[in-house]
Amino acid sequence: MEYLSNDIGSRLSGTENAAKAVEYTKNQLSSLGLDKVYLQEVMVPHWVRGEKETAYILDNKTKTVVPICALGGSVATPKTGLSATVIEVKSIEELNTLGEKVKGKIVFFNRPMDPLNIETFKSYGGCVDQRYSGAKEAAKFGALGTIVRSMNLRLDDFPHTGTQSYGDLPKEKYIPTAAISTNGAELLSKSLSVNPNLTFYFKQSCETLPDVLSHNVVGEIKGTEHPENIMVVGGHLDSWDLADGSHDDGAGVVQSMEAVRILKNLNYKPKNTIRVVLFMNEENGGKGGAKYEELAQQNKENHIFALESDSGGFTPRGFSFECDDTTFAKINSWKPFFEPYLIHSFVKGHGGSDIGHLTAKNIVKAGLKPDSQRYFDYHHAANDTFDAINKRELELGAATMATLLYLVDQKGFN
Amino acid sequence: MEYLSNDIGSRLSGTENAAKAVEYTKNQLSSLGLDKVYLQEVMVPHWVRGEKETAYILDNKTKTVVPICALGGSVATPKTGLSATVIEVKSIEELNTLGEKVKGKIVFFNRPMDPLNIETFKSYGGCVDQRYSGAKEAAKFGALGTIVRSMNLRLDDFPHTGTQSYGDLPKEKYIPTAAISTNGAELLSKSLSVNPNLTFYFKQSCETLPDVLSHNVVGEIKGTEHPENIMVVGGHLDSWDLADGSHDDGAGVVQSMEAVRILKNLNYKPKNTIRVVLFMNEENGGKGGAKYEELAQQNKENHIFALESDSGGFTPRGFSFECDDTTFAKINSWKPFFEPYLIHSFVKGHGGSDIGHLTAKNIVKAGLKPDSQRYFDYHHAANDTFDAINKRELELGAATMATLLYLVDQKGFN
Repeated sequence: MEYLSNDIGSRLSGTENAAKAVEYTKNQLSSLGLDKVYLQEVMVPHWVRGEKETAYILDNKTKTVVPICALGGSVATPKTGLSATVIEVKSIEELNTLGEKVKGKIVFFNRPMDPLNIETFKSYGGCVDQRYSGAKEAAKFGALGTIVRSMNLRLDDFPHTGTQSYGDLPKEKYIPTAAISTNGAELLSKSLSVNPNLTFYFKQSCETLPDVLSHNVVGEIKGTEHPENIMVVGGHLDSWDLADGSHDDGAGVVQSMEAVRILKNLNYKPKNTIRVVLFMNEENGGKGGAKYEELAQQNKENHIFALESDSGGFTPRGFSFECDDTTFAKINSWKPFFEPYLIHSFVKGHGGSDIGHLTAKNIVKAGLKPDSQRYFDYHHAANDTFDAINKRELELGAATMATLLYLVDQKGFN
Repeated sequence: MEYLSNDIGSRLSGTENAAKAVEYTKNQLSSLGLDKVYLQEVMVPHWVRGEKETAYILDNKTKTVVPICALGGSVATPKTGLSATVIEVKSIEELNTLGEKVKGKIVFFNRPMDPLNIETFKSYGGCVDQRYSGAKEAAKFGALGTIVRSMNLRLDDFPHTGTQSYGDLPKEKYIPTAAISTNGAELLSKSLSVNPNLTFYFKQSCETLPDVLSHNVVGEIKGTEHPENIMVVGGHLDSWDLADGSHDDGAGVVQSMEAVRILKNLNYKPKNTIRVVLFMNEENGGKGGAKYEELAQQNKENHIFALESDSGGFTPRGFSFECDDTTFAKINSWKPFFEPYLIHSFVKGHGGSDIGHLTAKNIVKAGLKPDSQRYFDYHHAANDTFDAINKRELELGAATMATLLYLVDQKGFN
């Protein structure tokens, strides 16, 4: 983790750092004495942020600088920046009600994450449409740009990037879109309530370059009884560009490697094949996951289980499982193994976005669920760095994953 | 919390800062519109660290400075410091086996916290005898001083202080004792394995001054049906001197106040009297807790419940309860109220050291149990500061405490 975060750093798809991370983790896996370590070629998008963005609120003659960052996939503003009056909305529905009234304006999406959900990913899910589709929807009505409140439960000065999509809009309709820090969003909203005619200025020079050849990194321990049955454990190698991506998803990468290292170190010979997969391009395209599935189908592979860690390196609390009720009942019978360590919160739910591509008929998918209270303090922001990781919490997650792999391998789902 | 930590700062018993914290929290409680806010006088010890300690390993001619801090209650070294050869032991039993062999030497207690316990307080309990009684035991055999590995699961450069006791040793037998950082302990141990004749030097100028008048801070909401039944919620106001004590126990102080504020804010009229108590001198004497109990007995008060938060401001996981099995079964029937928030780890165990003084016949005691993985990274060390606190996690703890107070008040234990 230290090398990945501090020596390599941010690893956005298509960058030199992403390539370094492929090389580094491949070598690390090779040093574990696995049966096979290899790369899978995959073409990935290559979006670059360009110069650091600038933005300010111009309220009468008072200019207040606010922290923003371009959203992944966004186009640039004009070279001299973009200045317009602002309409604040809380949702895409509200935008649709306003319709043509937003023409020539900047739309400011300002629905905060709901602090009342204990499961902060639920609050993220309830907000992220503003970031992902806000620009596309506002462009339809002739808005000049969109500014989105960062997906962050905390009030601070970090803008949080993340992917956005123009969908099937024609290219000439693309408008620039950026995230604003939560403190910035609060300030902008308060300022608008006093002066609805203030103007907002922002400048960004991001662009999408041609796709780049990149790789998933795969390591394998061959099964002794059913080598044809494959169990995947993984996270994603790419990260956003604002920080070194220690929680998202450096944690998942090193935990997946560590889970396999633990089993190897115990000289455990799995019945089924265990495959650690470090996926490329989860953040802005999901090309690595899609390619992995494409090759699995081509090779007629039989995936029985997939486990992903992509929710940060915090104290593990349990797992979410994608499976039928009978299987879930079987999995729940393993709870006593996890209870002494307080990792026995087993729920049905999303496994992970990389393993989400897998379509094998009877596959069970699982996601490690760490404590989620602090995750969105760091997610996609400049503070998702090595110092935000606690070694002990990270290791507990890896050990938890190794345990689940062992149980699935030993006991199966039937 | 911000005021307590950043404006007041460290609050060791007997200091001006401790008095400021009494004043500040009394005023804060008064602003909540409670029925009664008052102070309880209590005499507390007044130990002062004096100048910053220095220490080094002298190995042949190489001098390596290592981070140490005097343990609370320790005497000073001679003014020019203390220099001696070192005997490393892993336990007081090992010390007893060595006996007079430690005469004229520095005894180095180096048994680390056991990383395998998920409940880190258990590992603390398994180590802290070295800190609390190490000097007393080594002095019996004529050792000149003791150095104790910090109670910390992490390898870092922070020495962790904490209380120690010379027991019934005559004063002239007292020897100076200090904690060394975990990295320092590792270095000293490795150096000793190469050169058992190296010398260790340390200098500290701490002293115990005369006792000082201080206070517990108490606020009350009178019960509507059974005002004679008292439910306590509290934490301790004092902290060690090396930092502002945000986790230990600023968190417990503000959570206790917040729990009462929440109930007050909801305009909840408790059946029983709810009393928030901010205890003085938990860290090095427990005089506040003892005084509270003394007055409770004098006033023939009937305490039915006491809840303490003194395990850090991290994500709450549940509670520990001191009660009989029938009561514990009743309390467990409330688990469904906590389960949606993943705070339903209910165990039998220690409530808290301040409420530990309470002796009412049928009292039930409870301790908030936050996630404990990071607690000993900060405990009694210079990094237990405001920036180590996460607001959301802290608030979740307070809300959890308010919920338990409500349930006990509404449902009782019978």
